[in-house]
Parts: sequence; structure tokens; C-alpha cells
Amino acid sequence: MDKKRLLVDMDGVMADVYAQFMAWEFRATGIQYRREDVIGVDEVQAFPNGKKHVYQKYFFESMPVMENAVEIMRQLTHAYELFIVTAAMEFPNSLPEKYRWLDTHFPFIHWKRRVFCGDKSVIQGDILIDDHFKNLDTFSGKTYLFTQPHNANSTDHGHERVANWLEIAEKLL
Amino acid sequence: MDKKRLLVDMDGVMADVYAQFMAWEFRATGIQYRREDVIGVDEVQAFPNGKKHVYQKYFFESMPVMENAVEIMRQLTHAYELFIVTAAMEFPNSLPEKYRWLDTHFPFIHWKRRVFCGDKSVIQGDILIDDHFKNLDTFSGKTYLFTQPHNANSTDHGHERVANWLEIAEKLL
Repeated sequence: MDKKRLLVDMDGVMADVYAQFMAWEFRATGIQYRREDVIGVDEVQAFPNGKKHVYQKYFFESMPVMENAVEIMRQLTHAYELFIVTAAMEFPNSLPEKYRWLDTHFPFIHWKRRVFCGDKSVIQGDILIDDHFKNLDTFSGKTYLFTQPHNANSTDHGHERVANWLEIAEKLL
Repeated sequence: MDKKRLLVDMDGVMADVYAQFMAWEFRATGIQYRREDVIGVDEVQAFPNGKKHVYQKYFFESMPVMENAVEIMRQLTHAYELFIVTAAMEFPNSLPEKYRWLDTHFPFIHWKRRVFCGDKSVIQGDILIDDHFKNLDTFSGKTYLFTQPHNANSTDHGHERVANWLEIAEKLL
């Protein structure tokens, strides 16, 4: 039987965007935000210097990896036809940085399985793991909502929630 | 009625890859190739230094634009939900260069309508214009084969051939 096609988002699923924003905000201002401080607000808007940081060199390339993501992704690449689908076009400086980030942390994901796009509605697959409703709500397959501060207070819009990579492993492996 | 989704390839359709390879080969070796010399051979393989040039800075960014492509693309963006779908992942240095190339020559194509990928089979649409059978043969919608030296001697594999942008305009506008 053909493997199911699994689409995995990068920012907020594989990459810990909030850890990065908090670290860069602290470095810029000395203010230490916690995840509890930014519940319900879009990531870039949640931090005073967020809009500046996404244009700064090395912001995307130096993103911390989500806990357990590497080992579980490695297993998922065997069980599924796995594609990385990431919105990279709004911040074009992120394009080479995201590519190198994948090479560094997920070198087992072949370049054929990488998609950098603007609007994910053009990508087809059986399963999507993402942290943004704008991507999940238009997807026709099975959807998993990765809990992040910006979506933590929302209803689930009918998507199945996962809080971390161990929960993804439980459900998908 | 919803607009049909039209996917347009960059290299060999919007961008004149052969003109670029011939110019760079001439600059490197003094040998002037003609399109007739490289019929039936994959673009990168057709030129002795092709594999070197695709890794060189500015190769992708300085590609000549296909004749009439800009004006006809501008009209197509009104008539269709148009997405650029380009295989950029094999040569990651091409990622920012292709983005800037679009900004320079096709600034009217919003970043939301740009997809840089490895394997195009993951992209869904109604119509695809491409010069490579590997992309057209797996596409479920209507397909147009843009004639280029590498496919000029092949059968059409059931795709409708177009030789230039004026023919695209005739068929799609």
C-alpha cells in the first residue's frame, strides 16, 4: 500500500519559534517574556521587536529545535511520505536559512521533500501538522493542531490537538 | 465562479535557461552553442560546464526573461489564480536568487503565490505549464508542454505543446 503523505510545518512545530523570539527580545531589551505572557497573540506581534527580528540575519537559521522532534521525524520519514511545508515567502531572507536549518538538524529530509511557499492551500496531502488555523482550516485531509501560545486559548476548529512531539509519536507511529 | 488555479514553471518557461547556459558557457570556454546542438539532452548535462554554473552566484538571478512572458503573465494573473511553482531545492543557492528574479521581472506576483519545491507532485492545481515530463506526467489537471531543446524531439506524452508565450496567450486568455 502506498504510504500516506504527511505534511509537517516548520515554525511552531519543528522549530521553537517562541523560544527564539523570547531569547532575541531579551537580548534586545533585557525583558524576559514567558509563554504565559503572550497567549492568544500572533507570534510576530506578541513581541515588541518581533517584526524587526524576522528580518535579521541568522534569526531563522539559529532557531532551537523542538524537543524530541529529530528522533520522531526520523521515524516518521520511514512510515510516511513526509514533506516539510513551510511558509517562507513573506520573509525571503528565511529561504536559505531555513534550508540550512533543515540540513543541520534534519539532514535525512531529502531536498525533494521540502516545500517553501506562501499559501499552503496549494499543497496536497493526507495529513497536516501545523500550529496555524489559516493552514489547517483549508486542508482537506486529517489535521493536527500543534499547541502554541497563539492558539492555546482558541477552540480547536475541529482539529485534533497535539501538545508536543511525544503526542505526535503516539498518534502517528 | 472561482478562478481556475494555473501553475507556471519558471526555468524553461518564464526564464530562458538555454540562453543563460549558452552565455555562461561561451564566457567560460569561448565556444558558442546553439539550441540545435543540444536537442534531446537535459539542460544541465547539455553544456560541459553546466553543473558548475548552476552553483555559481548570480546564475539564476541574471536569467533572461522569455519573450512576451511579462505582459502575458500580467494578464494571466487577472484571469487565473496563478501560482509560480519552481523546483529550487536541488540548488539551494537559487532560492534567494529566484525570489529576487521574480521581484525584478514579475513584481506583480505576490509572495503568497510563490512555491519553491523539490517535487512538484505535491502541488495541486487545474492547469500546469512546464517544460519537463517528470512534472507534467504526474499532474492530474490540464497540461501544457513548453517546447525546449531537451523535449523538442520527444513525443508529447499526451500534453498540449506550446512553443512560446504568444501561443500560451492564444490558448489561455
